[in-house]
Amino acid sequence: MKLLIDTQGGDKAPIAMLNAVQMAKKENNSLDFVLFGDKKDIEEVLGADAKNYEIVQTEDIITNEDEAALSIRKKDKASIVLASKYLVEHEDADAFISAGSTGALLAAAMLIVKRIDGFKRASIPTFLPGLKGPTLLLDSGANVDCEPEFIYEFAKLGSKYVEKLLGIQNPKVALVSNGAEAKKGNELTKKAHEILKNSELNFIGNIEANEILTTEADIIVQDGFVGNVILKELEGMSKVFVGNVKNFIMQDNKYFSSDEMKMLFMKDLMSLMGLTKYGGSPVLGVNKAIIKAHGNSDEKAFYLAIKNTVDFVNSGVIEYLKEN
Amino acid sequence: MKLLIDTQGGDKAPIAMLNAVQMAKKENNSLDFVLFGDKKDIEEVLGADAKNYEIVQTEDIITNEDEAALSIRKKDKASIVLASKYLVEHEDADAFISAGSTGALLAAAMLIVKRIDGFKRASIPTFLPGLKGPTLLLDSGANVDCEPEFIYEFAKLGSKYVEKLLGIQNPKVALVSNGAEAKKGNELTKKAHEILKNSELNFIGNIEANEILTTEADIIVQDGFVGNVILKELEGMSKVFVGNVKNFIMQDNKYFSSDEMKMLFMKDLMSLMGLTKYGGSPVLGVNKAIIKAHGNSDEKAFYLAIKNTVDFVNSGVIEYLKEN
Repeated sequence: MKLLIDTQGGDKAPIAMLNAVQMAKKENNSLDFVLFGDKKDIEEVLGADAKNYEIVQTEDIITNEDEAALSIRKKDKASIVLASKYLVEHEDADAFISAGSTGALLAAAMLIVKRIDGFKRASIPTFLPGLKGPTLLLDSGANVDCEPEFIYEFAKLGSKYVEKLLGIQNPKVALVSNGAEAKKGNELTKKAHEILKNSELNFIGNIEANEILTTEADIIVQDGFVGNVILKELEGMSKVFVGNVKNFIMQDNKYFSSDEMKMLFMKDLMSLMGLTKYGGSPVLGVNKAIIKAHGNSDEKAFYLAIKNTVDFVNSGVIEYLKEN
Repeated sequence: MKLLIDTQGGDKAPIAMLNAVQMAKKENNSLDFVLFGDKKDIEEVLGADAKNYEIVQTEDIITNEDEAALSIRKKDKASIVLASKYLVEHEDADAFISAGSTGALLAAAMLIVKRIDGFKRASIPTFLPGLKGPTLLLDSGANVDCEPEFIYEFAKLGSKYVEKLLGIQNPKVALVSNGAEAKKGNELTKKAHEILKNSELNFIGNIEANEILTTEADIIVQDGFVGNVILKELEGMSKVFVGNVKNFIMQDNKYFSSDEMKMLFMKDLMSLMGLTKYGGSPVLGVNKAIIKAHGNSDEKAFYLAIKNTVDFVNSGVIEYLKEN
């Protein structure tokens, strides 16, 4: 399997990416990597190991400040652009992983790698730690202004993805709204409900946002603006809650049998409360595998992103989407 | 002060409302109540005390199943309609409190009590338990489809409300978006940002949803669909979070000095984690005070709603909105 790596995107580039690549290569020597970035920097980090990798020199760097679609055209020697072109031009290139700008990556996916026939939009999903198992949220922020049809597409992309990746047959789809009844929702949501209800998908109806972590649905859908609010609120609230519990525990000693037990309790509780960090999310709906890793990925997170990418490629979800 | 009470809306009607009224009356005899509902039922609950209240017989009951605006016209002898009319026709009637259908109450507020000149929409705010003090969220669900101007109106209603009720001068307003920069957001949000930036309000810019409980803003605004998602997710996550902590504590004994201390720890932690229940929220932007109490209000919650209503009337916020 041949994986293309953006060594320039993300807060900890290039060291985190290069360390992760070396870890993955050591574990599985059948993985081939093509590294996009500054050749000199890369060779400095890799040392003698550099000879084991194909390196593609890049010239520009796209930042989060750049206007996404524009930057793809203007900075056409940047890693995201060159790697996307490489992906298209080389049949044996299986996937591209980047911790760079989400907007630019999505633009390159749409404009260079291009959408699968039948889909108007690409979407980035995120797994939420639901009480009844992982729940896939789409769209998690890529598409902030949506037509009702896009929401149906997110549901379809999510369904196929979950089928192939987790082996769930006929996965359940729910739409986030402000009430369970079909008549509830803003204009977009009411129309999306109608389309989903009449579709071939296993649509179980609306859920309200208080059910996000307890729903039976395998996939929950909304536009990318609402999806982003859902994700970010979950992240922010978890932090506040954990902080509150921590403060409460620290300020009183009477409950615990010893100081050691108090610290152990805290540690165990915190590891329970921590949200699972997934190593990356695919851009679904385009012709080849593009994986977005978190911008703040350290080597462990980027290593996880590489492992998830291998699973994603092996799942065959892209071919499955092309056939359906 | 004369308060009109809907004894029919809500899960625990009429007993919770009538008990709450009696408690409030006992505490403050200068409060006069007009009770809307079934006279026979009311007299049965109040017994000899019934003679101390004006009672208005109603005929219909509007339920959550009714289409809101339509029900106001068709069920014109229902408590929400009769009380709203009473509020308009009697200058000495100060406020109307109902735990009934939010949609119907809002429709009655708009169609019967009518909007204050200069406002296109009425909005129901909700206080969130922010770490830096209460943060007022508008719109919390009344207006699911919004024009950018409505979001400015919510910010204005919220600012005046917070100024008068909490005495905060020049309160800070933030807009929830998917990024801090002005260019971030869906179409609605970008336009609302522009209007807020050029307004007389103290607009501090966009916040992302992970900052909802930690923001410095006194008021946060979005359309009612997103506002509802924010509120419901907060509610649902709190429940899940508290449940997780509880399970974790129950399944292990090693940390605590005794079973009693374990139970005490749990009790103390739970009281810390519980979201404060506010007794009711005003419908802001209409000519007289209308207060929505929670549908599942028990007598304590409804009693709190009465107390909040007294504060709301005394704050003079409606006159303040009319002047500005």
